[in-house]
Amino acid sequence: MNAEDLIMISVDDHVVEPPEMFEGHIPDKYRDRAPRVIRQQDGADVWTFNGAIIPNIGLNAVAGRPREEYGIEPTAFDEMRPGCYDIDERVKDMNAGGVLASMNFPSFPGFSGRVFAAAEDKDLAHAVLRAYNDWHIDEWAGAHPGRIIPMALPVLWDAELAAEEVRRVAAKGCHSLTFTENPATLGYPSFHSEHWDPLWQAVCDENVTVSIHLGSSGKLSVTAPDAPVDVMITLQPMNICQAAADLLWSRVIKKFPSIRFALSEGGTGWIPYFLDRVDRTYEMHHLWTGQDFGGKLPSEVFREHFLTCFISDPVGFGLRSLIGIDNIAWECDYPHSDSSWPNAPEELADVARGAASDEINKITHENAMRWYSFDPFAHRSRDQSTVGALRAEAAGHDVSTRSYDKGRFEKSVGTEIGKLAKMATA
Amino acid sequence: MNAEDLIMISVDDHVVEPPEMFEGHIPDKYRDRAPRVIRQQDGADVWTFNGAIIPNIGLNAVAGRPREEYGIEPTAFDEMRPGCYDIDERVKDMNAGGVLASMNFPSFPGFSGRVFAAAEDKDLAHAVLRAYNDWHIDEWAGAHPGRIIPMALPVLWDAELAAEEVRRVAAKGCHSLTFTENPATLGYPSFHSEHWDPLWQAVCDENVTVSIHLGSSGKLSVTAPDAPVDVMITLQPMNICQAAADLLWSRVIKKFPSIRFALSEGGTGWIPYFLDRVDRTYEMHHLWTGQDFGGKLPSEVFREHFLTCFISDPVGFGLRSLIGIDNIAWECDYPHSDSSWPNAPEELADVARGAASDEINKITHENAMRWYSFDPFAHRSRDQSTVGALRAEAAGHDVSTRSYDKGRFEKSVGTEIGKLAKMATA
Repeated sequence: MNAEDLIMISVDDHVVEPPEMFEGHIPDKYRDRAPRVIRQQDGADVWTFNGAIIPNIGLNAVAGRPREEYGIEPTAFDEMRPGCYDIDERVKDMNAGGVLASMNFPSFPGFSGRVFAAAEDKDLAHAVLRAYNDWHIDEWAGAHPGRIIPMALPVLWDAELAAEEVRRVAAKGCHSLTFTENPATLGYPSFHSEHWDPLWQAVCDENVTVSIHLGSSGKLSVTAPDAPVDVMITLQPMNICQAAADLLWSRVIKKFPSIRFALSEGGTGWIPYFLDRVDRTYEMHHLWTGQDFGGKLPSEVFREHFLTCFISDPVGFGLRSLIGIDNIAWECDYPHSDSSWPNAPEELADVARGAASDEINKITHENAMRWYSFDPFAHRSRDQSTVGALRAEAAGHDVSTRSYDKGRFEKSVGTEIGKLAKMATA
Repeated sequence: MNAEDLIMISVDDHVVEPPEMFEGHIPDKYRDRAPRVIRQQDGADVWTFNGAIIPNIGLNAVAGRPREEYGIEPTAFDEMRPGCYDIDERVKDMNAGGVLASMNFPSFPGFSGRVFAAAEDKDLAHAVLRAYNDWHIDEWAGAHPGRIIPMALPVLWDAELAAEEVRRVAAKGCHSLTFTENPATLGYPSFHSEHWDPLWQAVCDENVTVSIHLGSSGKLSVTAPDAPVDVMITLQPMNICQAAADLLWSRVIKKFPSIRFALSEGGTGWIPYFLDRVDRTYEMHHLWTGQDFGGKLPSEVFREHFLTCFISDPVGFGLRSLIGIDNIAWECDYPHSDSSWPNAPEELADVARGAASDEINKITHENAMRWYSFDPFAHRSRDQSTVGALRAEAAGHDVSTRSYDKGRFEKSVGTEIGKLAKMATA
């Protein structure tokens, strides 16, 4: 297929929350204590909540910067492309990049909302979290129907409230919950505890996919303090294999046969090896470890429960039949530095050259639609949804690369490792 | 190729050190303080050194046990197959398993000799370490020339002494040094420090391959304390990707262009994805991270410096051209629970069905010979070296499966996680 003919839905992008997001969503009694953006003396914009400063408004939101500057974290809204935080501008950027629809992980609250969970006043935390979800679903996703796959943050500190929130947002059409790759490293009961059962029951009842983003455990892939940052960049995706193994062998999968997890930004090329490894582990060890999937192999169980995705992964695409053609989706990762925006369609068409169009369609959009119960074609026709059609709508939209303002450039350079560390623990 | 026609050299097996190993190797002045085996009141044999008890004589040495009992660690020499600790019996087991030659990692000292390094008296530690290496090279490997690839333990606590020891053992024909996958987690300078340069210079000068075994960092792949042990078993091999990334992006590779590392027990199926990932990391990020391999891609550099290996890895074998046909070796993992001994030849022949014999020969023995400067054919002809010929020599050798003695079985059962944890930190 030609790049212009693809229909592309990204299951992993990022929203940079705009300063005014809580207005109209937070109850009056909490308005003064809701998170807010302040400008520091050095010109940096930061979120503040619960007495803490959250230093990263943008989490490596470098879309539109030259690659030489990828290590420089934007520290103010006016250093970012407006598409990072303005939904109308975002949709223009999506059009220019040929992206029909997109699922957006949070930035300042952390991938699993741990910034909210840190508040001692849990009523406040709960009000803020619900306001966030309402803003995300009603405003961010609601502004352009069919363009944003809505996603909710979890109530990390209470599994019953977490279940209640899943049911509440599902009633508003939200079928994706972002969650941590390892609750144990955040200080909560692990995936092996019964603690989370009310939440898992709710996501099953409400047909919600649990989306687990790399780096959401708060645990870094840092081999040594003096390791080059390239080491951590390399290792991030494969590290999500820890969450995959943790969940695959857990009681969760056995007790909740309809539960589904997405391994967000985890890549796909390592999955065939992983599936061989789990089957061999089962074959060699289940007689003493007691693992029992009712006669199924772990690899079969994986395909029933896990969605994988890639940005550009020639190995994974080539091995798609070993992964499961219904278990692979595509992601853009806008506005982070691993993204190929706005040229991702050409990159994907190149990787997919020669593949059958029904396989390409599953990977580019059909799997995402099914796993997230999301139908963009209720809002626009297929013909209007192709890369070519969307780009035509974006005619004249500026996607040229811009350098940072020199003065700010110097100011915002920190240690390389520190910047990536922030990404990894977000 | 038929299983009987294969010539198989294993680059990763394990020796269980026999009690009398230090006799004749340790200087008289240290004889009383050398490690020794004592029998505890509960019937367990343990090593003791430097005031400490080292609880694992055998590190999951379960060869010949039924799979139901793989979780039970042998705690006394008479609970193990003699092939674990007796070189004559080992060679019989190798013959019965069709294995021409084998490289054996240590058991009680830990994979990188950290038990010796823990002694405050560094003269004692040095004497014990040299005695260990002399025993391994002269007795264990020397008893049956051409059957054991000699391997030395490193002087972890002093890079100059480490270099000196590498030169000393190389003069005796030893071209493999076992080392930790991450010195930083053991409390030493990381791979990114100049600290180790004398050692790297010595291994380059002496044509020694640095063999890095999974679990040699002392850092566990445990997702949560209550995770099923299957999670850790699954994750161990891929975790060596951390050492691969750490070394590949390090200054070591750039400063020592002839240095070579082996990723022992690391599997191979994940390597093609890893190589794509490092190349993409380079492409997207090198302009700001400053990585520079003199115009080469990281994947090219990987193939110049890293040997990989597998026990049975259909995905890795299928992707051998993406890994590098000169970068793959086979391992048996005798006497650990992931081993297919004595049926590994049939397992490998099945995986390799249809492949060209020159490719199979590289993987089964030629790559191991070249990377470790080891020539078994100086001692026996190729015709005498095949699986079929070796098995003919082993006619009558008992390889039947035996259960543990029931009384000891009950005694030696610990927590599952505890047993595997010992493996992982050895």
